[in-house]
Amino acid sequence: MVQASPIDFYFDFASPYGYLASLRIDDLAARYGRTVRWRPMMLGAAMKVTGAQPLMNIPLRADYARRDLVRFARILGVPFTFPPTMPIVSLAAARAFYWLEEDDPVLAHRFAKAAYEAHFGRGEDIGDASRVAAVAATLGIDPDALVDAVARPEIKARLKAETDAAIARGVFGSPFLFVDDEPFWGVDRLDHLEIRLKEDAGR
Amino acid sequence: MVQASPIDFYFDFASPYGYLASLRIDDLAARYGRTVRWRPMMLGAAMKVTGAQPLMNIPLRADYARRDLVRFARILGVPFTFPPTMPIVSLAAARAFYWLEEDDPVLAHRFAKAAYEAHFGRGEDIGDASRVAAVAATLGIDPDALVDAVARPEIKARLKAETDAAIARGVFGSPFLFVDDEPFWGVDRLDHLEIRLKEDAGR
Repeated sequence: MVQASPIDFYFDFASPYGYLASLRIDDLAARYGRTVRWRPMMLGAAMKVTGAQPLMNIPLRADYARRDLVRFARILGVPFTFPPTMPIVSLAAARAFYWLEEDDPVLAHRFAKAAYEAHFGRGEDIGDASRVAAVAATLGIDPDALVDAVARPEIKARLKAETDAAIARGVFGSPFLFVDDEPFWGVDRLDHLEIRLKEDAGR
Repeated sequence: MVQASPIDFYFDFASPYGYLASLRIDDLAARYGRTVRWRPMMLGAAMKVTGAQPLMNIPLRADYARRDLVRFARILGVPFTFPPTMPIVSLAAARAFYWLEEDDPVLAHRFAKAAYEAHFGRGEDIGDASRVAAVAATLGIDPDALVDAVARPEIKARLKAETDAAIARGVFGSPFLFVDDEPFWGVDRLDHLEIRLKEDAGR
């Protein structure tokens, strides 16, 4: 049997719907023998291409999103708390992920889950390097090394390259997933993604 | 037992996701003893409030939507054909609906289903009064009377009032539904809407 390729999971740490997807995607993929490549990105760069505004700045939509997020989390049975600022600037968190991933992809994944849990599970601000470092410290990561790393040009360039690659693939929202080359946008498309995995499994 | 209030179903005849929702909403509501009030509106007026652009004019999103719509229709098992122009100007169709509804709400509902079926089921253009009249004629509606009606100031004012009322309730997309006063945006929220109806039924 040919090994199925990993699912690519693009998200922005500032995206609450990305958080909801992050809580489901690993288990969902595993049920169909797939792994997941977590790819944090800067959604703001994609929004320049589409002309979109941050959700929480849009009249009518922001009010709706506040209700929808609470309802969605309740239906999924997961914790959700509004952070004090939405959206945060997620540069430090995303850079920290790629810095960690260089040496230890498993730790990078644990860090991403911890960062999302802090930000949207408990409603903590993770909008600067010191706060990101505090989250990372709970996993035994040296906070000073993290603060130093996320200011390094090569880490900044790495995140920019990942973001550019995502946009080149058509990513314009968070969460945004690919099964092989088939795109799925939004936590509300995980059901369609699962149908795709089920069809593949039946072949 | 107190009669449950109807579900309000706001949509734009130019909205392909509104079409997908239109094929499910009546049966879904009926399973929980609810009726549906179909409320066509001019989404463009709401998009002025939110600063949104027509989906098919947005880089990246338009390409994605073309794939997503075909996949969504396949998963639902319903016909879907891209019309030659997206979006059409849906003024004539929406005005025709309210004109018909004055005398015969059942006929207005049948007209709405026929118009959506023509536009997105078979991919026909319904962007002007004569094309709308041709659809209506298949239901025995006098096409000349329709063309005359949709040009009348009071019918134009009626659609504008319905659209303004929708925006005042927070409607910014299509489909957009209310169960009592709880909002649900998108065909992908019909599952959450059903959960709400189920909870109500269990009370």
